[in-house]
Formats: sequence, structure tokens, C-alpha cells
Amino acid sequence: MSAPSAIEYSDALPEVRAVYDDIRKTRNVPDVNNFWKYLARDPVTLKRTWQSLKEVMTAGALDPLTKEMIYLAVSVTNGCGYCIASHTAGARKAGMTEAMFGELMAVVGMANETNRLVNGYRVPIDEAFQN
Amino acid sequence: MSAPSAIEYSDALPEVRAVYDDIRKTRNVPDVNNFWKYLARDPVTLKRTWQSLKEVMTAGALDPLTKEMIYLAVSVTNGCGYCIASHTAGARKAGMTEAMFGELMAVVGMANETNRLVNGYRVPIDEAFQN
Amino acid sequence: MSAPSAIEYSDALPEVRAVYDDIRKTRNVPDVNNFWKYLARDPVTLKRTWQSLKEVMTAGALDPLTKEMIYLAVSVTNGCGYCIASHTAGARKAGMTEAMFGELMAVVGMANETNRLVNGYRVPIDEAFQN
Amino acid sequence: MSAPSAIEYSDALPEVRAVYDDIRKTRNVPDVNNFWKYLARDPVTLKRTWQSLKEVMTAGALDPLTKEMIYLAVSVTNGCGYCIASHTAGARKAGMTEAMFGELMAVVGMANETNRLVNGYRVPIDEAFQN
Amino acid sequence: MSAPSAIEYSDALPEVRAVYDDIRKTRNVPDVNNFWKYLARDPVTLKRTWQSLKEVMTAGALDPLTKEMIYLAVSVTNGCGYCIASHTAGARKAGMTEAMFGELMAVVGMANETNRLVNGYRVPIDEAFQN
Amino acid sequence: MSAPSAIEYSDALPEVRAVYDDIRKTRNVPDVNNFWKYLARDPVTLKRTWQSLKEVMTAGALDPLTKEMIYLAVSVTNGCGYCIASHTAGARKAGMTEAMFGELMAVVGMANETNRLVNGYRVPIDEAFQN
Repeated sequence: MSAPSAIEYSDALPEVRAVYDDIRKTRNVPDVNNFWKYLARDPVTLKRTWQSLKEVMTAGALDPLTKEMIYLAVSVTNGCGYCIASHTAGARKAGMTEAMFGELMAVVGMANETNRLVNGYRVPIDEAFQN
Repeated sequence: MSAPSAIEYSDALPEVRAVYDDIRKTRNVPDVNNFWKYLARDPVTLKRTWQSLKEVMTAGALDPLTKEMIYLAVSVTNGCGYCIASHTAGARKAGMTEAMFGELMAVVGMANETNRLVNGYRVPIDEAFQN
Repeated sequence: MSAPSAIEYSDALPEVRAVYDDIRKTRNVPDVNNFWKYLARDPVTLKRTWQSLKEVMTAGALDPLTKEMIYLAVSVTNGCGYCIASHTAGARKAGMTEAMFGELMAVVGMANETNRLVNGYRVPIDEAFQN
Repeated sequence: MSAPSAIEYSDALPEVRAVYDDIRKTRNVPDVNNFWKYLARDPVTLKRTWQSLKEVMTAGALDPLTKEMIYLAVSVTNGCGYCIASHTAGARKAGMTEAMFGELMAVVGMANETNRLVNGYRVPIDEAFQN
Repeated sequence: MSAPSAIEYSDALPEVRAVYDDIRKTRNVPDVNNFWKYLARDPVTLKRTWQSLKEVMTAGALDPLTKEMIYLAVSVTNGCGYCIASHTAGARKAGMTEAMFGELMAVVGMANETNRLVNGYRVPIDEAFQN
Repeated sequence: MSAPSAIEYSDALPEVRAVYDDIRKTRNVPDVNNFWKYLARDPVTLKRTWQSLKEVMTAGALDPLTKEMIYLAVSVTNGCGYCIASHTAGARKAGMTEAMFGELMAVVGMANETNRLVNGYRVPIDEAFQN
């Protein structure tokens, strides 16, 4: 078992290539990101993760930009550097402007602050929120 | 110093009442939530937090519904029970439908999953995301 | 294996009683908290945790109040309800005033906010902080 | 929208320069840290964050050193590399000795450990801590 | 949109019933847990989550007990009360003894402690771990 | 107080050398990892952490491989880069195969996802899990 490394298309198993092909076609990109190339070490997880992500991120009641910004909000809260970089790029591609980014970060910051104020002040849930 | 408890309007200091009044007027509600009544133990933090929240949550490049959903996404990620209850209520009031809620949770779930896959597989940032 | 429950002194093994005795003597209290009574399910972990905690929380370069407030800051950040309740009590006993509590929470809130702003804005470490 | 980058004083808008000036004067430093230079992408968030931080970190019931150590405890818990580097520097400047740093880290470590023991053993809050 | 509540089999849509049936059959249980009954508000997420979980938790290179203990370790770290309760039950059912539980918690506690010591001491990765 | 740096055996105090010697002997390795060399700044924390870790990680009801994988699961959840690298190496050394790693990551990912679904859907604990 060697160090983690990207599995390129040319070295990939047929089931991995099938996923790469679907990602490239769905996203209309020439190559897949490192995330998929590293996940390819486990073809089962690669396939399940891609199928889940495709289902979850497809436009539905929420538009793609909103979904990308929510993804970014979670990644910033968790401090995942790769995810912040890739979903900032994804959100920009989906239309996030500089002003939207600024407001997104402001909300994420406030939420992380008030989440802890609630914890520390041990605030009980209002009856009105129980239902 | 007694146990934490809500400070009601009738028992509040003038500077606390001023904040309560502004919250009620801004949100057009008859009373403030427990969050503010507990935070009122520290009038300085109460005032700063309200002023910051008002500035951050006002409609701008992002609409109020999007902001409430981002707030909820962070609160769910952090596991803050009070915040989840209050911002679910806030998002509903701002127009979140059941379908939107479902998709929001799906994105939050996937983001928390893939954030960890990235960590575990130690995925390096693609050059394309560096700028 | 039954549901988790407190192991009272009267039902405890000799090695558990020895730890309870040392806690009561060290803290000058008539009984130990639930934390220890639940941890007593595993006498090895009980003993190691108590010995470590005693060593860590003893006054040294930092006084007991400062240590309790740091413990509380971490517990609030992690959202551990039991730990927030017990270390708020511990900090008060060590001298935390209402004003100190307010400032402590304000710092914890700001730190959680700016930690995420740093993540989202992808701020590189200043050369001056590298050493 | 280009890659994130620092906004230097010479390139900054008047409202950004006003914040930089106040930081430099308040802290008596020749230049502001990267945190502010990156946050300057959003002048509204820059101004609010600085005003809040100035209010929160000013000496009050807690002294500056204690506040910096609490900030560091939170940043270490959240794993924010930039924040750990900058607030370690801030705490040292405020008087944190090597012995204090060692005890601070020991408390932060223990708190993160016992927070999880409490979770896993599902310890109910003692009646004595409820008030 | 009413308050969150469990969707029982008798009130469930056909696609929800199909998932409930598969869970009951796969796990050989008379009824599904609350997790599934609440997730049923969104049949798409319900189905995807069950299919993913079934694939992930099936015995493979790791046995079911090990998988349940890993699930519990993550849930304890995140402080998810429901998940801790359900996966403690799951692990016990899969064979976790009291001694195993004690050691599991001890490892989870130590990992959470040393994770923060590493952060605070800013330990660089050893060359030997890079590959 | 200078920048954090590794304390090598040749520069170490006698009590630090004693810990290094015990680590090398216990693990049968020629040198200790950076974690210990950085922790050596505080000989008390170094000694306590090593003694605790040795007690916790020794084979008991759980074998060393299982313990290393649990350690890795926590470290991935917390996003501690150093810990992920060192405990991936430790788990491999203890026998973790590529297939085991893939399944471990899949479980960690699912647990982090469903922990948040539980939070967001506010799922109450089943009566069957209460005991």
C-alpha cells in the first residue's frame, strides 16, 4: 500500500473510468478533480459518492447556486481546506458574486458565534419553536 | 449569581429594553425570543449581537430565505439544538417549503460526509482551485 | 450489559471507592459528581482520568479560575451540555463573577466567528507569526 | 472575481483605510495582519468585525492575557491554523510564559477528552448544576 | 408545514413503505427506528440514505462490530445524542462487551485530546508519514 | 520563548529522555515522532500523555488494529492533518489493508452525514435506546 495519490484516467479500472466519464459529461469538463482521483482508490465509495452527489446537487426546489453556497457554509464551519477551495470555485461558477460571498461569510460567522452564545447561556427552546 | 434565567421586559434595564424594543419593531413581533432574554444578562453583548445580527441578516445580495437556510446549515453542522429550532422557524417564515428543507438537509449531510472523505484521503487542492 | 447508570459509593469496587475518596478529599466535597459515577463503569479509565485531571487542574503557572474558564470555553465550543453546566459551576466556585462570565462568552463567541472568517477568506499565516 | 489576496493600504478604499488606521493606532503597530487585509474584500464585514473585536478584547473584568488565552483555547479546539498562530503571538505579547502555554494546552486537551467521555457515557446533569 | 413528527407505516407513501420493508427485512426487526420515520418526510433522501447505509455497513473487509464501533466513535466526537444511543445499541447487538465499550471510549477520549495538542503545538508532519 | 521546534534527544532534559527511551523501547523504533519532540516543551504533559496513551493503546478487549482505526476515525472527523497521517501509518503497520481503509472511510463519511440528518430532522431517541 503506497502513499495516497491520484488515479489518472489512463491507469483507472473500467468501473472507475465509467464514473469519471459520467462526471465529465454531467459537468461538461475535460477532467475530474483530485477529489475523485483520490477516492478512486475505493471504486465502491467512488461510485456511491458520485451518484449521491449528483442526486443531491441537481437543481430541484433549490437552485445550484444556493446549494453550492450551503456546501461552502458547511465546509467553512468544518474547516476543510480542499472543500472550501473547490466549493468556492463551484459557487462562483454557479454565479456567486463578490457581494454574495461577503454576505455568505458574514452569516456563517454570525451563526458560529451565536451557536456558542446559545450553548454558554444555556438557552431553553421557546415553546413557539417546539412545533 | 443565580441560575441562568430569562430577563423579561418588565424586569429589564433601560438599555436592555431599548434592544428589546428594536427587535420587536424590526421583526414586527410582540415579544423577543429566549435567546435575547438570556443574553440580556450582559447588556453589552446583547446590544452588540443584535446590531451585528441585524446588519448581517438584512436583505442585500442574498435574500432573507437564503440567509436563514445558511444559518440553519451551520447550526445543524454544529449540533446546536436551540439554533436549529429557531432558524428552522425563521426559514419557514421566510418561505422555506418542505421540499426546500429536504434538499437543504441533503446538501448539509453530503457536505459533512465529503468533508471527511477529503480529510481521510488527504486530497491535495487542485491547481485550478488555487486562484 | 444494562443501561448506563450511576455507580454509588455503596455499590462500588474497592478501586473505584479509592478514587471517589481521593476526589472527595481533594475537592473537600461530600459526594462526587455524576461524571465520576458514570465513568466508574471502567475503573481503569476512571482512575487515569482523575489522576490526569488532578494534575492538570492544580494551580501552577495558571490559577484555578483561569483554568476553569478555559475548560468552559472549550466545552461551550464543543456544545457539551453536561460539561458547560459543571464547569460553569466550577468557575463560579473559583471566583468567576457575572461580569467575567459575560466577557468569557463574548470572547468565545468572537473566536468561533473569526475562526470561520479566516477559513472562508483563506487567510495565509503572516510571516511574523511563523516564529 | 480574482483569487483571494491581501488588500494593502495603498490600494484600499477610504472606509478600509479608516479601519486599518484605527487598528494600527489601537494596537500601536506599523501594519495590520493578513486577517484584516483579506477581510477588506468586504468593507462592511471588516468594519463590524474590528469594532466587535475591539469591544470584546478590551480589558474589563478579564485582563488581556486571559482573553488571548481563551481565544487560543477555542482556536486550538476548532483547529484553525491561522488563528492558532496569531493568537499564540498575541498571548505571548500579553505576557504568556512557556509554563502558562503548557498548562493552557494541557487544560484544552483534557477538556476535549472529557467532553467526549461525557458524551459517550451519556452522563445526566447533576441536580446541583441545574441552578 | 407542521412540526417534525414520525411517519408511521400506516401513513406512509408506497415508496416510503418499500424502504421500511427493506429495512425490516434486512435487519430482521418488527419496526424501523425513529431516524427513518423522521427522514421519511423526504422520500428521496430516505431511500438514498438507506441504500448507502446498507452498502456501507454490510460486512466486508471489516466486520459489523468494528463498523458499529467506528460509527459510535464518530458520533461521540460530534456529540450527536440520538446517534450515540442508537449506535451504542447497535454495537452491543453486534457483540460489544462492557470491556470493549470502555476501551473504545478511552481511545476516543485520547484521540480528541491529542488532536488538540497537535494543533496547539503546531506539530509538522514527519517525513516518514508523508508517504 | 522561541518558535515551536522539535527537541532532539541530544538536547533533551533527563526526564524527557526517559520518556523518549520508553517510547522507543515500547514501540521498537529508533526515534520518536515529531508529536513527542514538540510536546517535550512541557515535560509534565509529555510524560502524562505518553503514560495515558500507552495504557489506552495496549491490546486488551480491543486489538491494536481496531484501536488505531478508531483513532483515525476521530482524527478524520476532527480534521487533524498530522493525526490523520500518523494514525494512517499506525493502522497500516498494525495490519490495515487497502480494503479496510476504504470501508473505514466509508463508515466515517456516513456517520458524519447521518449525525447531521439526525440534528436537522430533530429525531427524538427511541424508547428502546433509552436503556
